[in-house]
Formats: sequence, structure tokens, C-alpha cells
Amino acid sequence: MKLVPPPAARVGDALSAVATPSLLIDLDAFDANLAAMAAFVARNGVALRPHAKAHKSSAIARRQIEAGAAGVCCQKLSEAYPFAAAGVESIHISNEFVGADKVAMAVELAAHVRLSVCADAIPQVEALGAAALRAGVKIDVLAEVDAGQRRCGVTSEDALLSLADAIAAQPALRFAGIQAYHGGAQHIADWQARKTEAGRAADRAAHFVRTLEARGIQSAIVTGGGTGTVEFDVASGVYTEVQPGSYVFMDGDYGSLAYDGELQWRHSLFVLSTIMSAARPGMAVCDVGLKGLAVDSGLPRSVHWLDAADEPVLTYSAANDEHGMLNAKGAPHDDTSALLGKRILLPPGHCDPTVNLYDEYVCYRGEQVVDIWSIDARGLSR
Amino acid sequence: MKLVPPPAARVGDALSAVATPSLLIDLDAFDANLAAMAAFVARNGVALRPHAKAHKSSAIARRQIEAGAAGVCCQKLSEAYPFAAAGVESIHISNEFVGADKVAMAVELAAHVRLSVCADAIPQVEALGAAALRAGVKIDVLAEVDAGQRRCGVTSEDALLSLADAIAAQPALRFAGIQAYHGGAQHIADWQARKTEAGRAADRAAHFVRTLEARGIQSAIVTGGGTGTVEFDVASGVYTEVQPGSYVFMDGDYGSLAYDGELQWRHSLFVLSTIMSAARPGMAVCDVGLKGLAVDSGLPRSVHWLDAADEPVLTYSAANDEHGMLNAKGAPHDDTSALLGKRILLPPGHCDPTVNLYDEYVCYRGEQVVDIWSIDARGLSR
Repeated sequence: MKLVPPPAARVGDALSAVATPSLLIDLDAFDANLAAMAAFVARNGVALRPHAKAHKSSAIARRQIEAGAAGVCCQKLSEAYPFAAAGVESIHISNEFVGADKVAMAVELAAHVRLSVCADAIPQVEALGAAALRAGVKIDVLAEVDAGQRRCGVTSEDALLSLADAIAAQPALRFAGIQAYHGGAQHIADWQARKTEAGRAADRAAHFVRTLEARGIQSAIVTGGGTGTVEFDVASGVYTEVQPGSYVFMDGDYGSLAYDGELQWRHSLFVLSTIMSAARPGMAVCDVGLKGLAVDSGLPRSVHWLDAADEPVLTYSAANDEHGMLNAKGAPHDDTSALLGKRILLPPGHCDPTVNLYDEYVCYRGEQVVDIWSIDARGLSR
Repeated sequence: MKLVPPPAARVGDALSAVATPSLLIDLDAFDANLAAMAAFVARNGVALRPHAKAHKSSAIARRQIEAGAAGVCCQKLSEAYPFAAAGVESIHISNEFVGADKVAMAVELAAHVRLSVCADAIPQVEALGAAALRAGVKIDVLAEVDAGQRRCGVTSEDALLSLADAIAAQPALRFAGIQAYHGGAQHIADWQARKTEAGRAADRAAHFVRTLEARGIQSAIVTGGGTGTVEFDVASGVYTEVQPGSYVFMDGDYGSLAYDGELQWRHSLFVLSTIMSAARPGMAVCDVGLKGLAVDSGLPRSVHWLDAADEPVLTYSAANDEHGMLNAKGAPHDDTSALLGKRILLPPGHCDPTVNLYDEYVCYRGEQVVDIWSIDARGLSR
């Protein structure tokens, strides 16, 4: 007999029967987010290459591509494998990588998909070019420029031109343009301040594009942007392609930003949890903590009852490894023992690392499980 | 052709050839920790039931049991499955659980192993007892008491006695004793203050044991304790069994505590990472962030070079999803470009949730990979 835990849910189950903790997608909200972004970029003539690091699921990538996306971004080479295996034809590695193990993965992927990668250093380009030549594959390379993030990317015109020359010198590589991503700008809460910072990033990107043009080098692709700034990135006229990821889900952090423009997102991602202890007055303990909820961008900012209408308002106040502490202070609710076994929905503070803790999405509409999607790139961080 | 990422390492590889990020165990340090705890509890006549939530690996559980452990603790029922499947004969679920999905797992596990569980509420006991009776299995139940953690566990003598009566009333359940765990005490940095708080927890446990004795109920098992307090727990004479988990690895948080007693632990757990971008003066970027390092108990407190002797001292200053920011400020090291491709070892701030991000341990001695252990309970959080 094979001794493995039973599945958390099956298609057709009532939502109230799903085992906890589980990662849920509200498909009505998800579909609305998917459609809103697809329509927005189509209306504005910019390509959409959603970031798969947010969802890590080829089932979601397929839906994004069916809705018009040009392919996906991955942040890591190993992460790209399940998307390539699932038939995604165009994958951009929006990140630098160094080392023989990484180059070998890039060359293998390039034999199966149209692969583009980022570079910000000449040794990286030379190692990749040599391996691609040996393997007989072609790889598109984008020069990453620092658009204000102060993380990866070249910071000067000279460094950019030297990098472009190094790419051009490799017969198995093609210079494909630039990546200009400013992660910090994504999370500025004030809409106007976010717009201003996104504008600065676009200006920097445009400056680097002109630097290359002055040397006769065209940037076929200018890629960047994210969920927090996509409306400004698209309007800038600088980017040919945008890379939002979190828009399909939203999370506590992105949900706390102001969206004064035409784009509005719905929370579609929730962790379903059960109250498994309520032995102390005024509090309860649920069955999900650090191993089922990333807390780097804060604890869940709200707690929703799955099937109760008149229960107290709870605050998720602390995450232990496997426990979530819930405060239910207030006169009528000091005795919380009746909450034992009740279920709650928690919007994660940060979707990307929360998703990376689960093997599947339990997808529901209304009160019913309608699909199970594998998080097939879960844990693929190389 | 099956398109999957290549393995991170193979037995016999040089450590310098292991793909990154990977989770490493320094087996010399690990073995020393394993032996020190085994000898300590044996010398003091207390049973050791290590907590498998820390390592989530049946390969490690087997080594702990070979060294004398009485079995393992798991925090979740689904987590127990790979240990049961690997032949661990005695498993304690050191946590409450509620719901039909959970009860079904408990009953299934009890058909394969000697299972004990924790309870702090009568409805939980009644549901479990009914299901165990139907299934024809016996389950040991420990009443969890609050030893100062203010999380789970009954808080009064009356509640404890009612709970013990409810357990005794179920023909398929056996009252086996009490669990008294004080997680907060584990992490008090000062040795004397930690000793004092551990003593308070032991006093509370002893009080509840006497409460039961006064009613003629014997506690065959009194279980609790952890890596930070185990020396005090063992010396208290109250616990029949201790539950430390992190001692095999240590981590940044436990490593920052004072250990003035006879027990000293070595860091055996590291994340191996590569510097994949160094385009800005005074800093570098490595290939592991939130998806490979839990940061709830702080960033890595030190950065060790794998194969370099005269490189600058780095500080891990921020974790993005897939990037780690490294500061290398200092006159001779403003140009960090020569660091590109070099490898570093990072002791995680918190071992448990870091382990839960990986599928395997790459085990090494000296400079060579000598074993690969599956983290077979990774992600099993139900």
C-alpha cells in the first residue's frame, strides 16, 4: 500500500470540504484580472509577457498566452523547464546567471524554445556565447540596464556599449534590446509618486536606447515594468513589452497601493485555513503559519470567514511555523471556543513566495471547486 | 524527451560544482550535533523524540532513531506520512487538529504506526474517538497544557480534567499524558533568563501533572522542550521526553543565543549561492532571496566564501524574491566585478521554513558531496 496523504480537494468538491491549509484561486476574480490586462495592453499596442515567477504554473501561462501574451518571463533557468515542457514557445529569462550549470540549462532550453536572457557582464556573455556555438543554438540576449533599482544592470553608457559589442561578437548570440526593470517603483503606495518614479525609470531606459542608437544599434525589444507601474510603463512609449506578474492574483502589499488610474485589480489568491485551537479567551489559532504564508511583506491584512456570517472580526497577529495567531478581542467574543473548526480565507501579504510553498492551486467559482492547477515550477530556483 | 532541470549535484561531485542555490548539510557538524544530543539525553535518562518539522526528512529521522531516539514528532498529520512510509514506528503529532480531513489522516496513520496526538478541546477528542472506533485503531492522546506560550493548550485545572475525562470516555483513545511546550522560551538570548523561563514552564507542567494525579490519573508521558531549553528541560525532572528539532542544524536565530551550559551546537545547514551580478561598485548580487531563504527570523547573519581566501567581507543586506543583495563596502573592494561567479555559504536565519523551500539536502564532508537526502515531507503542511 502506498502511504501518501490524500488529495486536498477534487473537482466538484464543495469549497467547505477542501483540506487546509490550501492555496485557492477565485477564478471569477482571476479571469477578470487576466482579461483586464490583456485588453489594456492590446488597446495600447504593447506586448505582454507576464512574469511566471509570480504563479509558477504552466496552466496559468497557457491561459495568459491564449489571452494574447507573447510568452512568459522566468526569473531562473530551472524555473523555465516546466513552461518549455508544456509548450510555451517564447521564454525570457529576466535575470543574470553565471556558472557552467546555468549555461548548460540555457543551451538545453534554447534547443526547445525561443529563449532570451539578460546580461550585465561580459564574462557571462562570453561563456554563454561559447556554449551556444558548441551546441548549435541561438540565444537572444538583452542588455540589462539599471533603471533605478540599484540591483542588477549596467549603470553607464560605456558599460552598455561594451556589453552590446560583446554580445555582437558572439555568432551564436543575437543582441535583442534592453531590459529596464525598477522593482522598487512597483511598491510605492501613492499613485502619483509611483507614476513619477516609473517615469524616471522610463526616462533612463529611453536614454540607454538612444545611447545604442547613436552607435547604430537598434533595440528591438525594450522590456520591463510590473503590476504596480504597468499603466505608466505602457503610456511611456518607451517599452515594447511589459512584464507584470502579480496582477493575476494581487496580494496584501499590492492591494495596499492606490490605483487611481483605469486599472483596478481584484484579490483572487487566498490561503484557506481552519481554526484548530481556541482554548484561550479572546483568541484563536489557525493551521497556517510561516510554512504556508510568506510574511516578508507583512502578515495577512484581513481575515475572511468562509461560511459564517455573524462571527467576530479577527486579526491575524503572528505567524509561527505552523500556527497563525488570531485576535478576536471584543466583549461578545471573549469565549472563542465556538470558533473551533471554522474556516477562514487569508489574502497573503506577498503572492510570489507564498505560491512557492504549495504544489497546487485549488480553483473555485462560487462555493465549488472547479479545477486543480499544478504549481509545476514550485521550488525551481536555480 | 523529458524536459526537466538537471540534478543540482551527484554523490562524488566537488562541492564547488554543486548548482546553486542548493541547501547543504556539513555532515561533520551534523554528526557532532546528533551525537551530542543523543549522549546528553541518554546520560540523563530522558527520552528523545526529535521534532521532524525542522528537517522534514525521513533520512534524518532514521539517523536520529539509530542514535537512540524514541521516534519523531510531526507538527501536521500529512507531514507524518513520509516518516510512516519510511518505517518510523512511533510518531507524535505535537499539535491540535480539527476537521474530517484531519481525522481521516489520523486514523489511517494509526493503522501503520504507534500514533499519539495532542488535544486541547473536547469536540476534537470526540470526533477522533468516534472515527478511531469505527476504523478499529487505537490512538494515544496527550492533553496539551499551556506552559507559558499562550498559544494552544488548556489553561485551567478544570479544563484539563474535563479533557482527560473526555479522552478516557473514548474506547479507541488512550490518555497518554501531557504536552507542555513553550516556544517563546526557546529563543531568549540570555542563558540565565532562558533557564528561568524554562523553569517556569516546567513548573506549570508539574502543576498540571499533580492535578491529574490528585484525580488518580497518571501521565505516562510528559513531553515538551526544544533546542533552546533542552538542557533545562532535561534537568527539571518533569519531562519524560524532549522534542528538540533545530539542534541538528542550528540557524542564525538559535546561533545568536548564549549557550553557557554543557551543550554547544555547530552550524551544519547552509545555503550555497553564486554571485550572479556585480555591476555596481561596492555591492554584489547573489542568486538566492526569499524563495531560498526564510527571513522571518532575520537575514543571514554572516556570509562565508566557499573557495576564496582573500575576498572582501560581505553583508547580506536585503532579500528580494530571487536575489540577495550583498554589501562589500571598503576601499579595496569598491570594484566588485571580480566577484562575479564566486560562491558563498549562507547560514539561514531560521532553519525550519528554509528547509521547507527545498526538495533535497546536498550532504558534504570537506570539499566533496557524499550524500543526497530527500526532504520528503517538504510542503506537507496539512
